[in-house]
Amino acid sequence: MIVVMEPGAPEKQIDTVVRRIEELGYRTHVLRGVEKTVIAALGDEREKMRLQALRSLEYVEDVVPILKPHKLASRTWKKESSLVPVGPDVAIGGPEFVVIAGPCSVESEPQIMETATVVKSMGARILRGGAFKPRTSPYAFQGLEEEGLRLLAKAREQTGLPIVTELLNPYHLEQVAEYADMIQIGARNVQNFALLKEVGRAKLPVLLKRGMSTTIDEFLMSAEYVLSEGNANVVLCERGIRTFETATRNTLDLAAVCVLKRHTHLPVIVDPSHGTGNWQYVTPMALAATGAGADGLMIEVHPDPTVAWSDGPQSLRPDKFRELMQKLRPFVAAAERTLAPMEG
Amino acid sequence: MIVVMEPGAPEKQIDTVVRRIEELGYRTHVLRGVEKTVIAALGDEREKMRLQALRSLEYVEDVVPILKPHKLASRTWKKESSLVPVGPDVAIGGPEFVVIAGPCSVESEPQIMETATVVKSMGARILRGGAFKPRTSPYAFQGLEEEGLRLLAKAREQTGLPIVTELLNPYHLEQVAEYADMIQIGARNVQNFALLKEVGRAKLPVLLKRGMSTTIDEFLMSAEYVLSEGNANVVLCERGIRTFETATRNTLDLAAVCVLKRHTHLPVIVDPSHGTGNWQYVTPMALAATGAGADGLMIEVHPDPTVAWSDGPQSLRPDKFRELMQKLRPFVAAAERTLAPMEG
Amino acid sequence: MIVVMEPGAPEKQIDTVVRRIEELGYRTHVLRGVEKTVIAALGDEREKMRLQALRSLEYVEDVVPILKPHKLASRTWKKESSLVPVGPDVAIGGPEFVVIAGPCSVESEPQIMETATVVKSMGARILRGGAFKPRTSPYAFQGLEEEGLRLLAKAREQTGLPIVTELLNPYHLEQVAEYADMIQIGARNVQNFALLKEVGRAKLPVLLKRGMSTTIDEFLMSAEYVLSEGNANVVLCERGIRTFETATRNTLDLAAVCVLKRHTHLPVIVDPSHGTGNWQYVTPMALAATGAGADGLMIEVHPDPTVAWSDGPQSLRPDKFRELMQKLRPFVAAAERTLAPMEG
Amino acid sequence: MIVVMEPGAPEKQIDTVVRRIEELGYRTHVLRGVEKTVIAALGDEREKMRLQALRSLEYVEDVVPILKPHKLASRTWKKESSLVPVGPDVAIGGPEFVVIAGPCSVESEPQIMETATVVKSMGARILRGGAFKPRTSPYAFQGLEEEGLRLLAKAREQTGLPIVTELLNPYHLEQVAEYADMIQIGARNVQNFALLKEVGRAKLPVLLKRGMSTTIDEFLMSAEYVLSEGNANVVLCERGIRTFETATRNTLDLAAVCVLKRHTHLPVIVDPSHGTGNWQYVTPMALAATGAGADGLMIEVHPDPTVAWSDGPQSLRPDKFRELMQKLRPFVAAAERTLAPMEG
Repeated sequence: MIVVMEPGAPEKQIDTVVRRIEELGYRTHVLRGVEKTVIAALGDEREKMRLQALRSLEYVEDVVPILKPHKLASRTWKKESSLVPVGPDVAIGGPEFVVIAGPCSVESEPQIMETATVVKSMGARILRGGAFKPRTSPYAFQGLEEEGLRLLAKAREQTGLPIVTELLNPYHLEQVAEYADMIQIGARNVQNFALLKEVGRAKLPVLLKRGMSTTIDEFLMSAEYVLSEGNANVVLCERGIRTFETATRNTLDLAAVCVLKRHTHLPVIVDPSHGTGNWQYVTPMALAATGAGADGLMIEVHPDPTVAWSDGPQSLRPDKFRELMQKLRPFVAAAERTLAPMEG
Repeated sequence: MIVVMEPGAPEKQIDTVVRRIEELGYRTHVLRGVEKTVIAALGDEREKMRLQALRSLEYVEDVVPILKPHKLASRTWKKESSLVPVGPDVAIGGPEFVVIAGPCSVESEPQIMETATVVKSMGARILRGGAFKPRTSPYAFQGLEEEGLRLLAKAREQTGLPIVTELLNPYHLEQVAEYADMIQIGARNVQNFALLKEVGRAKLPVLLKRGMSTTIDEFLMSAEYVLSEGNANVVLCERGIRTFETATRNTLDLAAVCVLKRHTHLPVIVDPSHGTGNWQYVTPMALAATGAGADGLMIEVHPDPTVAWSDGPQSLRPDKFRELMQKLRPFVAAAERTLAPMEG
Repeated sequence: MIVVMEPGAPEKQIDTVVRRIEELGYRTHVLRGVEKTVIAALGDEREKMRLQALRSLEYVEDVVPILKPHKLASRTWKKESSLVPVGPDVAIGGPEFVVIAGPCSVESEPQIMETATVVKSMGARILRGGAFKPRTSPYAFQGLEEEGLRLLAKAREQTGLPIVTELLNPYHLEQVAEYADMIQIGARNVQNFALLKEVGRAKLPVLLKRGMSTTIDEFLMSAEYVLSEGNANVVLCERGIRTFETATRNTLDLAAVCVLKRHTHLPVIVDPSHGTGNWQYVTPMALAATGAGADGLMIEVHPDPTVAWSDGPQSLRPDKFRELMQKLRPFVAAAERTLAPMEG
Repeated sequence: MIVVMEPGAPEKQIDTVVRRIEELGYRTHVLRGVEKTVIAALGDEREKMRLQALRSLEYVEDVVPILKPHKLASRTWKKESSLVPVGPDVAIGGPEFVVIAGPCSVESEPQIMETATVVKSMGARILRGGAFKPRTSPYAFQGLEEEGLRLLAKAREQTGLPIVTELLNPYHLEQVAEYADMIQIGARNVQNFALLKEVGRAKLPVLLKRGMSTTIDEFLMSAEYVLSEGNANVVLCERGIRTFETATRNTLDLAAVCVLKRHTHLPVIVDPSHGTGNWQYVTPMALAATGAGADGLMIEVHPDPTVAWSDGPQSLRPDKFRELMQKLRPFVAAAERTLAPMEG
């Protein structure tokens, strides 16, 4: 931690700051520059928020942290990339580029069965589908709840695809865990620390989506909540951030994939459906994700998006999803990864 | 709802869209402009997300909603401003400009007692203090939990100030409700819909903070979650949004106060402590809030911010808080509101 | 400047970095923390961008500047607040709270004459009006050009108000300087360094507007361009930044006023017309600006905004401007500033 | 254009709005919904900014444009993609994926000669290099100016690569045009309309970079400025936008490429050097750009970035650039485009 003093800070005040830092258990080193004096605090910064409080002292201009606050999620702590198994024979983070696909919401048995069959035949490896839905409006469809979970399990039985579904409420963890192979924590809950701790104690792998205004550092701290409770199987998902640009629903931050792959050993996938909010942009951004170094994709597919109960505008029809998977193949090869074969 | 067709959309496709809209229960009206055709859908837009799905049809360029999605929170629905009572003799939203003050976290009995006594003597009307703390890092102090609630209740007993404290986890609602006069939902939980529904069924007034990247429309929809469960006592709090500017912790969006006061009957207060993240900017932004039309303030005060367990940099020392309250008085008068007198 | 090395950086690489820093003329100091090594570079950072290049060395994680890059604009360099004279008897930055008002564009003689007379009678001290207009569309009205300047001068003659008008093109400097009392550099040109250098060599005071995505540090560097060419009379204007929120045209960053007043001696005014883009929010944000510590306001006024050639939605009718000035008076008094009296 | 009236707007006011719209030369159509009345204005929206002024009328809630404001840049106006020739044998926008490479600034003859030779041998087709540099600080290196232009011309002579260089000041257009094959307008000047008009009258192709907070619609309007002056050879360049995320210098908005390719016939390239600000992320984002549908890249290369006078942190060493070009080849093939061969 570096404490920067304002120009003209009196010696007495510099001494006060030094003493405070040492009381908190750090060694100090005072550096006198041309205009400003800087105090380096050496020691473990796990307690760095406490040092931030020094900013409330007069003549302290800034307190600059040096260590990243995350630990278990960090590549400094664990150098090799992690492999997160989902169901009996899929793993994210290895040589295979894993495509997760399915509808935004589970709506009916025919809808989920048809989608599951179709996406499997085209090379998807995990089925997604929402049973509990976070909706901006209390008047919008909130999901089929347990009935939705049952239908997902039925689709898994039929296709063999493991299933991932979102958890909104700690009350439902047990119920969701009974059916799902992987638990999704959505963008709006990325800093719902009560929920993160809860899934940290669960046995299932966790798909953690970045929030709309979560920095990469905060995103890793949210992963740290899950890891620090003992659950090492976390997959991160970039799904777009909120910016001034309104031509797309969100701004898909593909550089975040590079930054994450550098700083963490956890796998990183990309969701171009939410990331763009428009089916016309899903395929190019899926292709782009391979270049950025992603370990896989999450794609919304619906048999008829025009009647979807949620996220219709960004869902692909089965024929468009087939096209995506066909175009994806040479890009995955260019990235020196493998893709599950298309059937038939 | 206005459906905009791309230039050159074939008649057949326009017919398809019209039919779809009518199937969803709307009347339609087709308007042919010079370059584009536009289809107006007349009817209740409560189901508007369904219409959004039309964007997945080819040749549909855009779907523009006309009605605001909120209802109970809207001034169209209720014209007079709402008054939200907190404890036996305070109410937010009336002629009184209400100041809420207290530490970020409850840390100890002397700390909360001293703060409560001091802020009361200077004209604060409600005591704030966190017992359950949402922290970016799992390794940071997470709050004194029930012990914190007990200390808050003790401070109320001594000073008569009603207390507001944050709820993070639906599991703790009963416990928090036992002690608190008002429940705070923090910025990170503004779209934690499970939690919103839970406090919507509680009897206590709710202080709902805007999220770091929540639009004003989404903020009102989150209030709508609470209102639609039957709890009419919601106070909104602007606390800064996330932008590219890093000179302040957040960008305090005071114009949001004007926009909210225009569109909703609910009271709106401002938190310049989180809004700026720097004690040096708290007082001027508190004064500014009066001009913007706020119904009150929420201010972090700590007996010694340099040893605060959280949010030290943005907390005011008692002498600085006194200064704020003194400067505030003529601004509140200029805004034609009243402020509780300072003691002694 | 602090150079942060990655964990595990080899000694040899640390030596290389130290040597490079010393070659650039800095003294170095190596600090070895628990996880990371940090190298402090002591010396003048005027050349700091050169040090940034060290980030391209392997094992260098970050390069953190300590000194602010601005000099002449800084309060460290000049402690007392600057007073910028505009015309013979107005000055911005002193005890008087100065209101600049007028139409977005000069449209006709009756329009500018009527507006000038009206705003003067209500207490405005400087007349604004655009003769050269920066328009997003090449097909939109681009201003009356020299004819506009002539009409402004005529309005000055009639009312005695000094005039401020925007300069877009270095070619027009001489022409504009012939008529105007103050030159405005608009938000879109805040980093048009060719133009900044040009007005830095002019004799007239400069009104510099913050860009839509200009950080406060960059804003001060743009002022530094003008100051470093020898023109000391710069007034800064906060006019809203671009964020994800669309309920207002921009997000008026009033905290920027506090930050600027702390770091620079230059006067700071606020433009709530562009800052909100909506006449309904102009008055409350104007009142709020007094609390934030602004030295004045810039307000768009038009005899009939519904027929304005530009910025109609955010312009005030004369009766609304009178209301603003009436409400403003007690706020200016609360801020311990003075306001020119209203006539009649 | 759709004018939305507030709920409860009186009939008289609706009539007033209708009359105003008709006075501006539009046909109107009044649609009465359940809660709100909406007035459709049919006609050419070239004058739409005038209609926006209706928002200043009471009871007008919103004015929603339907037509995009750009014309010459639009695919509606010209369906086939444009091909922009640069120098005698390069063209951007066709089957070839064109790589532009070179240093941020021209610093010396050996530097530019070495870089030009090296990037050519690896498959770059155009040489970039700044002679006039837009720098945040007036104290930073501002470019070699005409000497820089001369060195660029010498490098072209030696390698045959056409050159692109930035124009900052309309005064220098003639000088720059004498040497360059393509004129770059930088991000900070994207709304410097004086400069845009100037290059619109030039004979050379223009490389127009998106500004840090320019929306895609505004970006196209800036292109429209150049096109409407008669210069049809415009190439757009996505180079990152400003968001809350600070892990990268900018947030590279690759989805903007898809949106642009859909709405305009102009070629679109990507600059991952400025887009990320960190050499470690340049290669993955370059690869990603192929998937997004870009027509080429602009990459900063420097013989020794650690001594670069500007942009060192984001510049590639020649060996890293070679690696980029090698990895790029299969991605370009996957995108069904061609890439110039590597020599030797």
